Amino acid sequence: MRVNIQRIQRDIENLSSFNATPGKGVTRLAFTKEDREAREYIKNQMEKIGLEIYEDGYGNLFGRKYGKDRELPSVMVGSHYDTVINGGPFDGMAGLVTGLEIARYLVEEGIEHENTLEVVAFNDEEGVRFGNGISNSRAMTGDMKEEELDNTFDKNGISLRKAMEDYGIKPDLEAAKVKEGSIKAFFELHIEQGPVLIGNNNEVGIVQTIVGLDRYDIRFIGKAGHAGTTPMNNRKDALLPAAEFALELNRIAIDAGYGAVGTVGEMKILPNASNVIPGYVQISVDIRATKEEVINNIHQEMNKLIDSLKEKHPVEIQVRKTLYISPVNMSEEICTILENKAEELGIKYEKMNSGAGHDAMMMARIAPTSLVFVPSKDGLSHHPEEWTDYEDLAKGIELILSGVLELIG
Amino acid sequence: MRVNIQRIQRDIENLSSFNATPGKGVTRLAFTKEDREAREYIKNQMEKIGLEIYEDGYGNLFGRKYGKDRELPSVMVGSHYDTVINGGPFDGMAGLVTGLEIARYLVEEGIEHENTLEVVAFNDEEGVRFGNGISNSRAMTGDMKEEELDNTFDKNGISLRKAMEDYGIKPDLEAAKVKEGSIKAFFELHIEQGPVLIGNNNEVGIVQTIVGLDRYDIRFIGKAGHAGTTPMNNRKDALLPAAEFALELNRIAIDAGYGAVGTVGEMKILPNASNVIPGYVQISVDIRATKEEVINNIHQEMNKLIDSLKEKHPVEIQVRKTLYISPVNMSEEICTILENKAEELGIKYEKMNSGAGHDAMMMARIAPTSLVFVPSKDGLSHHPEEWTDYEDLAKGIELILSGVLELIG
Repeated sequence: MRVNIQRIQRDIENLSSFNATPGKGVTRLAFTKEDREAREYIKNQMEKIGLEIYEDGYGNLFGRKYGKDRELPSVMVGSHYDTVINGGPFDGMAGLVTGLEIARYLVEEGIEHENTLEVVAFNDEEGVRFGNGISNSRAMTGDMKEEELDNTFDKNGISLRKAMEDYGIKPDLEAAKVKEGSIKAFFELHIEQGPVLIGNNNEVGIVQTIVGLDRYDIRFIGKAGHAGTTPMNNRKDALLPAAEFALELNRIAIDAGYGAVGTVGEMKILPNASNVIPGYVQISVDIRATKEEVINNIHQEMNKLIDSLKEKHPVEIQVRKTLYISPVNMSEEICTILENKAEELGIKYEKMNSGAGHDAMMMARIAPTSLVFVPSKDGLSHHPEEWTDYEDLAKGIELILSGVLELIG
Repeated sequence: MRVNIQRIQRDIENLSSFNATPGKGVTRLAFTKEDREAREYIKNQMEKIGLEIYEDGYGNLFGRKYGKDRELPSVMVGSHYDTVINGGPFDGMAGLVTGLEIARYLVEEGIEHENTLEVVAFNDEEGVRFGNGISNSRAMTGDMKEEELDNTFDKNGISLRKAMEDYGIKPDLEAAKVKEGSIKAFFELHIEQGPVLIGNNNEVGIVQTIVGLDRYDIRFIGKAGHAGTTPMNNRKDALLPAAEFALELNRIAIDAGYGAVGTVGEMKILPNASNVIPGYVQISVDIRATKEEVINNIHQEMNKLIDSLKEKHPVEIQVRKTLYISPVNMSEEICTILENKAEELGIKYEKMNSGAGHDAMMMARIAPTSLVFVPSKDGLSHHPEEWTDYEDLAKGIELILSGVLELIG
């Protein structure tokens, strides 16, 4: 392999050390002390490699290895370095380290290229502190607005703008926006965060589409009553339609096919006492699919289900949409390049979709984008035991290196 | 009517004033300042009426109007004066006030009788402070044990024995036990705490049986996973079998008939996040029926259901029985007397069952016992808005007065 496993491992381990919860997974929220330490480490590595450091109007950190023709659009590789609370060492960092390792290889081997290579370190992808997420790549696409900086607060009431200013970044959204046509290709490597690659015994996943997301909050309003003294035919049990909904949504998602998923993950029951009939139940609904048409079909089935539940149960049902994000396709051209490269390198790959959102989802708006998955042990992530074998990570980096070499001219 | 609505209302209102949460329902937990104030009020009323006050080895408070023959077994009327947190003014107190009002009537009218009338004020029926309940009537039947006094604690770690001693009662369980054959009849009036009487437009319910209670805690152990990245065919969603259980238990209880009820009232979901598949769900199961045979049938159906859920869902299911109480029949003889009296008095009554436990459930072990329900507005109880119209309450008291006069000789 051209890439160096020891260096990759060292980067991942060093980045893990900038951590607010040692021994309990990695915690590095945006614009904190740990963020600053990790950022300094990344800058140091970029400098050591010989990259030119640049920070944009939103604090995105770039390390540039210029090509012969600086006017040509750049080839960009990277991901985010923030984490969830008690997260793992790979989510985000694996993609950032991919950029660093590819730059090191190009420098060490003295490879000349026409286009500029840019390693990018995004921040605040997880959105844990301010509840928004993928903020830095959104700033690059122009999706971030001034209002959001002022109207988004952490749990201590500090606004996003104030946190950034305290950290030393004076946000300039206009300056952060990427010029049209200035990025030739964006590559992100990410851990799968699911069980598919390991289940299929594959080493790499080449993502075709990042799923769209349709979220609802549904409230079932019945009437609480004594579990002993209220006859069965005189009840308005809010749990029953909620339970039927959860079961039916599962069936609808399976029937929809195309890898669509539907989940009731959150449920609040009132008064939640063993001897009281539930008077109120609130659930979250999370629907994801790679095609807008499939999401729409599931939504229609869900509406029919709600109508039938209203007929069947003497309970009021309120449905509120809380989020909608369209599916995003990755660049077919780059996907094809990577598939060919994987064949050449003898890397066992599969074409797959991403069930989670990533910075690549935003970057696809402004550049031909590719997302490559490496296996997650037990499908775990956002968890202290999140793990990817370094051999697997190196194979993913090797594949992206091939893609970069193909495109960088 | 022979009983006096104004006096009844005054007693209920006065008792409501001994309250730890004015404006937020009535809160009077056992062995507190409010308990002591209410107890003093009850003693004062008993003295005013001319009853002889007696306290047993567990602090049960009796007011006696002796009959001509003190050797004959007594006719006892009463209920409890403790409440839940933020409860209502009638639960318990209605039955105690019944005893006081009947005693007043006998004294005022100069009615002579062979057997002694005893008005009883139980305490700690709700079991809120120590988590056990119907403690005082249990002491009278011999069901209360020394260990329970020492091993039962309130949330501040004070044992039941210590709380009683601090209150001024030195528990003597042997002395509290009622001598066999010393009670000819026990009458308890209670609010229905359900919607049946009002639904049927009846004034009084003559309880035939207090239902048996079968309680379980069921745990569904699946596996948490990312709601976006875990395919439908690779999930161990703990919510699905729990939801199916709740729906099927409802059907089983309806199919069982005989007024049986089955309720899933409590549900705990982990991790309970909109984008995570539930990995663990714990539910409470509450089954009640008037016949042991019906409870057993429901339990068997529940076991079959659990087996089929285990086959259908890749989730571990653990079932733990948490409580079993057999159904308790009221005295057929006294029921018949009350039915005849209701006819004579023109009181619209129905024979019904009690879905909740009461002191009468324990008293039935040591005496022919009768439980009479009066209507609860909206079926509400254990709630600040718990309400029974005084006219309805007076009719229930009138009926019990007739029963007492029939039996007191």
